[in-house]
Amino acid sequence: MRSQTVSVGVIGCGYWGPNVIRNFFEAPGAEVVACCDVDPGRLRFVSRRFPSVRTMHDPDKLIYDPAIDVVAIATPLATHYELARAALRAGKHVFLEKPAAATSQEVGRLVELARRRRRTLFVDHVFVYTSAVQKIREMIRQGRLGRLHYVDSVRINLGPYRHDTNVVWDLAIHDLSILDYLLGRLPKLVSVLGASYLNANSEDIAYVTLQYDDGIIAHLHVNWLAPVKVRTMILGGSKRMIIYDDVELVEKIRVYDKGIVVSRNSAELHKMLISYRIGDMYAPKLEQAEGLQVAVRHFLDCIRSGREPVTGGEAALRVIRVLEAAQRSLRHGGRMERVRP
Amino acid sequence: MRSQTVSVGVIGCGYWGPNVIRNFFEAPGAEVVACCDVDPGRLRFVSRRFPSVRTMHDPDKLIYDPAIDVVAIATPLATHYELARAALRAGKHVFLEKPAAATSQEVGRLVELARRRRRTLFVDHVFVYTSAVQKIREMIRQGRLGRLHYVDSVRINLGPYRHDTNVVWDLAIHDLSILDYLLGRLPKLVSVLGASYLNANSEDIAYVTLQYDDGIIAHLHVNWLAPVKVRTMILGGSKRMIIYDDVELVEKIRVYDKGIVVSRNSAELHKMLISYRIGDMYAPKLEQAEGLQVAVRHFLDCIRSGREPVTGGEAALRVIRVLEAAQRSLRHGGRMERVRP
Amino acid sequence: MRSQTVSVGVIGCGYWGPNVIRNFFEAPGAEVVACCDVDPGRLRFVSRRFPSVRTMHDPDKLIYDPAIDVVAIATPLATHYELARAALRAGKHVFLEKPAAATSQEVGRLVELARRRRRTLFVDHVFVYTSAVQKIREMIRQGRLGRLHYVDSVRINLGPYRHDTNVVWDLAIHDLSILDYLLGRLPKLVSVLGASYLNANSEDIAYVTLQYDDGIIAHLHVNWLAPVKVRTMILGGSKRMIIYDDVELVEKIRVYDKGIVVSRNSAELHKMLISYRIGDMYAPKLEQAEGLQVAVRHFLDCIRSGREPVTGGEAALRVIRVLEAAQRSLRHGGRMERVRP
Amino acid sequence: MRSQTVSVGVIGCGYWGPNVIRNFFEAPGAEVVACCDVDPGRLRFVSRRFPSVRTMHDPDKLIYDPAIDVVAIATPLATHYELARAALRAGKHVFLEKPAAATSQEVGRLVELARRRRRTLFVDHVFVYTSAVQKIREMIRQGRLGRLHYVDSVRINLGPYRHDTNVVWDLAIHDLSILDYLLGRLPKLVSVLGASYLNANSEDIAYVTLQYDDGIIAHLHVNWLAPVKVRTMILGGSKRMIIYDDVELVEKIRVYDKGIVVSRNSAELHKMLISYRIGDMYAPKLEQAEGLQVAVRHFLDCIRSGREPVTGGEAALRVIRVLEAAQRSLRHGGRMERVRP
Repeated sequence: MRSQTVSVGVIGCGYWGPNVIRNFFEAPGAEVVACCDVDPGRLRFVSRRFPSVRTMHDPDKLIYDPAIDVVAIATPLATHYELARAALRAGKHVFLEKPAAATSQEVGRLVELARRRRRTLFVDHVFVYTSAVQKIREMIRQGRLGRLHYVDSVRINLGPYRHDTNVVWDLAIHDLSILDYLLGRLPKLVSVLGASYLNANSEDIAYVTLQYDDGIIAHLHVNWLAPVKVRTMILGGSKRMIIYDDVELVEKIRVYDKGIVVSRNSAELHKMLISYRIGDMYAPKLEQAEGLQVAVRHFLDCIRSGREPVTGGEAALRVIRVLEAAQRSLRHGGRMERVRP
Repeated sequence: MRSQTVSVGVIGCGYWGPNVIRNFFEAPGAEVVACCDVDPGRLRFVSRRFPSVRTMHDPDKLIYDPAIDVVAIATPLATHYELARAALRAGKHVFLEKPAAATSQEVGRLVELARRRRRTLFVDHVFVYTSAVQKIREMIRQGRLGRLHYVDSVRINLGPYRHDTNVVWDLAIHDLSILDYLLGRLPKLVSVLGASYLNANSEDIAYVTLQYDDGIIAHLHVNWLAPVKVRTMILGGSKRMIIYDDVELVEKIRVYDKGIVVSRNSAELHKMLISYRIGDMYAPKLEQAEGLQVAVRHFLDCIRSGREPVTGGEAALRVIRVLEAAQRSLRHGGRMERVRP
Repeated sequence: MRSQTVSVGVIGCGYWGPNVIRNFFEAPGAEVVACCDVDPGRLRFVSRRFPSVRTMHDPDKLIYDPAIDVVAIATPLATHYELARAALRAGKHVFLEKPAAATSQEVGRLVELARRRRRTLFVDHVFVYTSAVQKIREMIRQGRLGRLHYVDSVRINLGPYRHDTNVVWDLAIHDLSILDYLLGRLPKLVSVLGASYLNANSEDIAYVTLQYDDGIIAHLHVNWLAPVKVRTMILGGSKRMIIYDDVELVEKIRVYDKGIVVSRNSAELHKMLISYRIGDMYAPKLEQAEGLQVAVRHFLDCIRSGREPVTGGEAALRVIRVLEAAQRSLRHGGRMERVRP
Repeated sequence: MRSQTVSVGVIGCGYWGPNVIRNFFEAPGAEVVACCDVDPGRLRFVSRRFPSVRTMHDPDKLIYDPAIDVVAIATPLATHYELARAALRAGKHVFLEKPAAATSQEVGRLVELARRRRRTLFVDHVFVYTSAVQKIREMIRQGRLGRLHYVDSVRINLGPYRHDTNVVWDLAIHDLSILDYLLGRLPKLVSVLGASYLNANSEDIAYVTLQYDDGIIAHLHVNWLAPVKVRTMILGGSKRMIIYDDVELVEKIRVYDKGIVVSRNSAELHKMLISYRIGDMYAPKLEQAEGLQVAVRHFLDCIRSGREPVTGGEAALRVIRVLEAAQRSLRHGGRMERVRP
């Protein structure tokens, strides 16, 4: 790092880029000095919002600017690998939008490159940094859910349609990164059933099933053709259950002190007795922090400390491996596929 | 029919039986005269609520009572076939709780028996008779949804656990009968992914996927281990979309005047342009009628007119065929199975 | 009491009467033997539902039937006093729908009569017997809310319009009985602002404000002309706040661990520092019991033990005194009125 | 105006000021060139977000800067009058946060000053510019509600507590400006019942009742001590009813095709028959525009055209007159007060 304040250049000023710019501005110790886009309209938009930021069309100019410490990449997926590789080679730390790259080979190479150059490679799996997901992880770690049985996620909306990817790579990736963070391991098997209504080459609805070693099942419904926005994840445990509703403004997490008690009748040993335990529901207080702000600060901390980010290259690689297995399953009409470790 | 008023005997007075008794009492032209259960406690309960009803332990006494016109069967699944067969043979009309029987062979034999004896065989797929489902069917028939793309249903709750069946036979059957009524045809392929947490022999969570000839996909999430009761069905069409929320007390159906417009750029023919059409949402007024009451009255009409009920033996047979394919898929770890026509 | 089982006669079989009949049937140790109504259609309806109950047109026949122990009165308000008086004089215990009577003089006389005849006079302020209201009272008693500041209730719906009374006597009476139970004392001052859109002689919208000795304010919005049914009560305390939503099926009570911390800056003594304490929200588990069933059982207990019911004549008298002050306020255009103790 | 682009200076960079700055930046034809605050921390915050904006401590420097066309004032109420007067005298157009000033005399003088100097005086009653409120006004104008009976508004939250004003001036002012826009006239009578729990000198809960000439009643519940944020307005008309829920993200307005039909029985002329008409509910599509952006653009249009803004000085004066009557009512314990025309 050349100075106390980290200088950031942002490539890609579409839908998400301005959020990245704003959050680097709001984080202590960082400043956005330049941004780059192919569309002059987007650059004008950024200039109006952030008049001090230099704008440019050529990403190389930004990547090779010696005054820039960090390159943040918020471009379409197809360009991630080339841009991130060039930035790492130029000695920059990289803040990379998800998905990290199009293949696990590419992500693997970025991980290796960052390691050799001793630069921080951060992939913006932003949900991992929300208070809600962090609270859920804490509760799982403390054993509050008992044995986790299943995770069921619904992440649907009317668009936005993306031409550069399908709904699995666009939406299920959020759930996959959350699951990677919560469970800390890869699923064993993946199967995906998809449908392509708008464009025969790209799924706009998909049902993803993940099976883990210890019997946990995760099921994801992702959909670009739904009438309303739903982002609900149910975590069913033997002791407690959680509903995480990301569309709620305040009470995003509800913890249900409910469970099932299985006992065996001593008289009739063959007969299983099932009863329900129903207690209070509670919604724990969550910090109001914006996930992207927490992500940016964690990234800046990792640059300073040299530590691997929670969603560094290795975590991103695990997520991409699951996506690749999902893609293979889609190609084979929903066949169960092993995730390559 | 022996008289103006149809005399009904009810076998099985557990959870659902008393509802059947009450609804026959409330329907004009019918009267419950007897009921039967193995549990004296349940008979006492019925006596307190309906003091005029004779109670008995032996179903044969009820089935062979010449004063009884209709036998309603609300017992566990394993007994459906024997009881219904005996009642039809005794010349009774039969009101049979779902599932009609344990196999399509059995249902086929009941259908045949009812035909030969000229008796009405009615299977209580009660959701078909709700104002909500009838309104949805009307909208589909009128072409209001445009081309139907997908149906996504979530039907989950904490129990009640049933020892005599699994979650697919207990809950997905409702969706299958609704789909049969809405779409009027069998799915081509079925696959089911299930998990058994409480009892290794019986699934308590399942994800059912149905594929129809014309590209419609239906997906059902059924679950006995969920912290809250959810009964939501999304129907996504090219012109409009519906959310049917059966847990809502008043506005069970919401119609979204939303759609996706796909056009092709004349300049760049290869590029597809996707845009969204977003209009009003509305919740049509629904009759407040109880589904079971509508079902009972339809059954009584069919007895009088000799017509086949909407959910007669043939419809029940189609539902059972799908359940059998689902069961085969479960046995083979989620394999895609053809539905036998 | 003549026998082990209490014999009940019900006068008035309109909207609420059949609920009363059903609940006496469901309560152990009671049985409805007769009912009475001026409308033959209502008697036929009851006969179909409860075939063992004798029906009659003349209330005197029921009141003076020596086989009857309890007279339950679910008729229009104008007849309450005469019927209850006759029943008490005939030595019956009385289960009286709210409002107990049209004036505090009348209620006072019924109280006195019941005392002299050693009979139980019970007024069916049914919300007092719901698990939700009982839970709230428990929390207030335990000091969980800290100092109670205010109660704000909204009880609105589209009708049902009642010709025999106004919206204050029809709906606010529920809140007044709940407040009487929760706070255990009369308000000091009452003011009511009402409007009469449908009928110049009878308010269909009203805003009732109650002021208590210790600074507590209660405000009630009651309305027959609202598009949706709302029944929400907020209780604001210094330590915690409760929202009681009676329209919710399961989580009727939400407890917010929120409060306001007022401190004074030592440097600038004149400046008050206000900060907020925000903690978890929780929804305590409530029993699923039906309020009317709890009420009926409590009434039967009081008959057996000779104890004064929680909503006996004295409690009903307090509620009527507040209604009378409310009525005076309405007559004087919203003037503040003292409640006569 | 000195140039094509309107140059804006913003005084007050607390909670709301940065929103004003951003919205002037986003509006075509305007630019924020300077801002002013007594707190250096707030100026640093603005500098980070809007690096091109000059910051200063002295408002006079901003007001008398000849390069500035517009002075936007987002300071505490006590300073509004002096700052706005100085700005108008210096020939600036003024964008003034609500409440316009502390008394109707002050607002009257600002109106007069703006008139004489031919400058635009705009008061930021921002809700008037939301799509929801504009849609409601359109429906009222088109007669869709029939005869309007009542407006009931609940605007409550846990704080934020304000030291410079009470809850009526802070929150009810929003409803008063919406009502002024919807109804286009002053109420005749105002009464307010308030309570002061945190600070004996300032109400934190209040119930405001407004009576209009034609029998319309408006009732406002405003509250800084509520556990959750509620912003719901019900408009009850003879033909239709609206619920406007500002906390909803998408469907802020729900229109209920419900009404009450009052007829008279020909046989019994004295008897009024009340029945309910219940039809569909619908949520009209609303533009997603930010209210403040619409307000800023309207303000800029008025500068260009010389027209009086919808929420110009005259409208603000009407709102202040109602607030003054409300304040008198509070002082007299809820007495009904006339609004001075």
